Amino acid sequence: MSSSKIIKLGFVGFGTVGQSTFIALQRNLCQIKKQIGCELEVVSVAVNDLEKKRDVNLGGVTLTNDPFEVVLDPNVDIVVELIGGTEIARELVSVAIANGKHVVTANKALIAIFGDEILLSAQNEKTLIRFEAAVAGSIPIVKALSESVRGNRIKAVVGIINGTCNFVLSEMATKHVSFASILGEAQRLGYAEADPSFDVMGTDAGHKLAILSAIAFGTKFQFDKIHVEGIQDILLEDIAYAKELGYQVKHLAIAVKTPGGLELRVHPALIPLDHILASVDGVVNGILVDGDLSGPLMLSGAGAGGDATASAVISDIIDVASAIYTGGIKARALRPEKLLDYPITSFTESVSGYYVRVEAKDKPGVLAEISRVLASFNVSIEAIQQKEARDVASAKVPIVILTGRMTERAIREVCEILASSDSIIGGVICYKVEDFQWAN
Amino acid sequence: MSSSKIIKLGFVGFGTVGQSTFIALQRNLCQIKKQIGCELEVVSVAVNDLEKKRDVNLGGVTLTNDPFEVVLDPNVDIVVELIGGTEIARELVSVAIANGKHVVTANKALIAIFGDEILLSAQNEKTLIRFEAAVAGSIPIVKALSESVRGNRIKAVVGIINGTCNFVLSEMATKHVSFASILGEAQRLGYAEADPSFDVMGTDAGHKLAILSAIAFGTKFQFDKIHVEGIQDILLEDIAYAKELGYQVKHLAIAVKTPGGLELRVHPALIPLDHILASVDGVVNGILVDGDLSGPLMLSGAGAGGDATASAVISDIIDVASAIYTGGIKARALRPEKLLDYPITSFTESVSGYYVRVEAKDKPGVLAEISRVLASFNVSIEAIQQKEARDVASAKVPIVILTGRMTERAIREVCEILASSDSIIGGVICYKVEDFQWAN
Repeated sequence: MSSSKIIKLGFVGFGTVGQSTFIALQRNLCQIKKQIGCELEVVSVAVNDLEKKRDVNLGGVTLTNDPFEVVLDPNVDIVVELIGGTEIARELVSVAIANGKHVVTANKALIAIFGDEILLSAQNEKTLIRFEAAVAGSIPIVKALSESVRGNRIKAVVGIINGTCNFVLSEMATKHVSFASILGEAQRLGYAEADPSFDVMGTDAGHKLAILSAIAFGTKFQFDKIHVEGIQDILLEDIAYAKELGYQVKHLAIAVKTPGGLELRVHPALIPLDHILASVDGVVNGILVDGDLSGPLMLSGAGAGGDATASAVISDIIDVASAIYTGGIKARALRPEKLLDYPITSFTESVSGYYVRVEAKDKPGVLAEISRVLASFNVSIEAIQQKEARDVASAKVPIVILTGRMTERAIREVCEILASSDSIIGGVICYKVEDFQWAN
Repeated sequence: MSSSKIIKLGFVGFGTVGQSTFIALQRNLCQIKKQIGCELEVVSVAVNDLEKKRDVNLGGVTLTNDPFEVVLDPNVDIVVELIGGTEIARELVSVAIANGKHVVTANKALIAIFGDEILLSAQNEKTLIRFEAAVAGSIPIVKALSESVRGNRIKAVVGIINGTCNFVLSEMATKHVSFASILGEAQRLGYAEADPSFDVMGTDAGHKLAILSAIAFGTKFQFDKIHVEGIQDILLEDIAYAKELGYQVKHLAIAVKTPGGLELRVHPALIPLDHILASVDGVVNGILVDGDLSGPLMLSGAGAGGDATASAVISDIIDVASAIYTGGIKARALRPEKLLDYPITSFTESVSGYYVRVEAKDKPGVLAEISRVLASFNVSIEAIQQKEARDVASAKVPIVILTGRMTERAIREVCEILASSDSIIGGVICYKVEDFQWAN
């Protein structure tokens, strides 16, 4: 690879993030040169549509609509992959690496699913791959995990890492409007995609957790082993009852080391109102890293958007350019060479308190019945409240329970027993209460 | 320097942080080797008292009470300076660099005051110097500023970076107990030094701000140009009145780029209760970085303590060891080679809203008089409240005012005029209200 004083970049993908990155790079080239000692130059850009009008002065950059031209261009040192998706992107990145290019990507799905294959081929070809922008926009969480807490044994990583989910839940909590209406608003504001299912059903947060957990614990990328739930079924009344009990409903991505292995789970959960993650509102992302030396470290900031993502992409470009320029290509690996292998524990074995809501017949003895069921599982009741019937005529009363710590397996049995009781009408609502007490 | 597979460390200083670092390194040597590909070994440690009993298994490490033995030891690749202070430490670091050693230090005063001289000599001798642990314990703020937001133009860095001040203010706000009593409690808990003046008068936060601002803006270390105020005069009643108005009193360290230059200031200020920095409580530190691309990024965590500081020291040791091992010694500089030179603006020209409290005679016309004074400076009044007299017999009533934005120079004139009024009894209390609106 070139070790000349000009490091050459080729972009594949030139949407919002690509253009923001390009513009910010042009503006700050001088500042970056002062810092790293070498120049950066964008030499080619692959776009989808050559004819499209863009508000970007491309100067002398070669435009092409064939992304393979960029990844095969002998002039290109670093390929900046911002095309998204896992099919063409996977091939492009693989060809780029095979041709000795370094790669910077913002593609979370690609790394979450094909990260092992990609990192291994980069290692074999002695090229660098960086993906800070794949998780949580401008928040430098990949660098923090791979470099700043490296002397720690990580206990847990807990993140609010999907801006759409967090925006929707924050708005439901403050404006008391249903999931569906807020989602519509989020789409109008550009905070949610036209097809939001990828976000609201938890897949996007799952991809990001696969990346965070692999870096934090030095394991494979294990997206397929993550338990993933979304926020699509959350009701306003549960957000309101949670708040009365001192909790906020958040969509969390959790990787925690337990004596039995690694728990990897994405789901809505109640967290205490005064917990630092409860203050992460709207489209902001926040990630808590708990290390044995560092204690809880919290990073928060813009989790999406062209400029915020560009901030991370550029930091990766500078990292790689620095390594090329200084000859330090054999730079610190993002994960250990020999990966660690923890068993992934089953979600049903994960332990926490639970929030349970049932609609009960308005008759004596229901509270006692619920208490007996939980007692038969040897689980304590932290709080139990009979709420006012929302509809007086219906003769249904909501009962809200906070349980002590128990397994998901046990709470599911409890919920089944309650659902089949004559005193309970309809389904049983149940969410984890996350107390951030790691059992390790 | 050695590029063999074992990188050798020499410690000078072996107090709380030194011992925590040593123990954590021993425990994690294997994990670190897997990550960076080379081994680390502590070969010598300089202590104050050779006879002192320590709960540390030193194995085969050479103990000495002459720190110069360590910095001159031809076996040592990296000197870990944890001795503190600026006199011997300065000489030790300088001798270490002159002898081609790399240096990792947690010494904030040393870097804040002699950083330029030290970084320049390291640059000349082609050795590395790192000081993540000098600011905010385990929070990776030096790395975030020097690497992760490098593509940004930084607008401002605002930190709660003195745990003692933050603990005292948090406790005053929640327990309604005076500065002096809380300080005593903090000393008993080990959160404050026997001589706390260095912390509570703002010097420590000033040292840290000198470091943060130099890295964020690529300037010299300019501790001597920072306006520094402490928290020693803050009264409970002002914390209470602030809260009634929707604000919390925090001790802030602020570096902000303005059209006129760089503002560098450390002082107590009112911040909105719902601002993210308001949730940084107790001994926790929090730092907000505002970049033009990233938007506001917040990092928070343990700002002090043996283990938290060791976490940062070890991340620096790994950074340097990686660079030695990969041959990338000419690694990215923490600041540009040619430093930037912004004028440091005078504190009296800094603009913000203000909280003003006076004790007025209980007679008509006082509110009108205050309003007239502010109007004569063309400053709006955001809120003005006459409080109940705390001592009915005294015929004094507290009046609390929130002003619109104005310069410190103007508010000082206002306060002088008010203090000399016949209607006002005693001194005038005045604090900045920080609205986090940067004028650039």
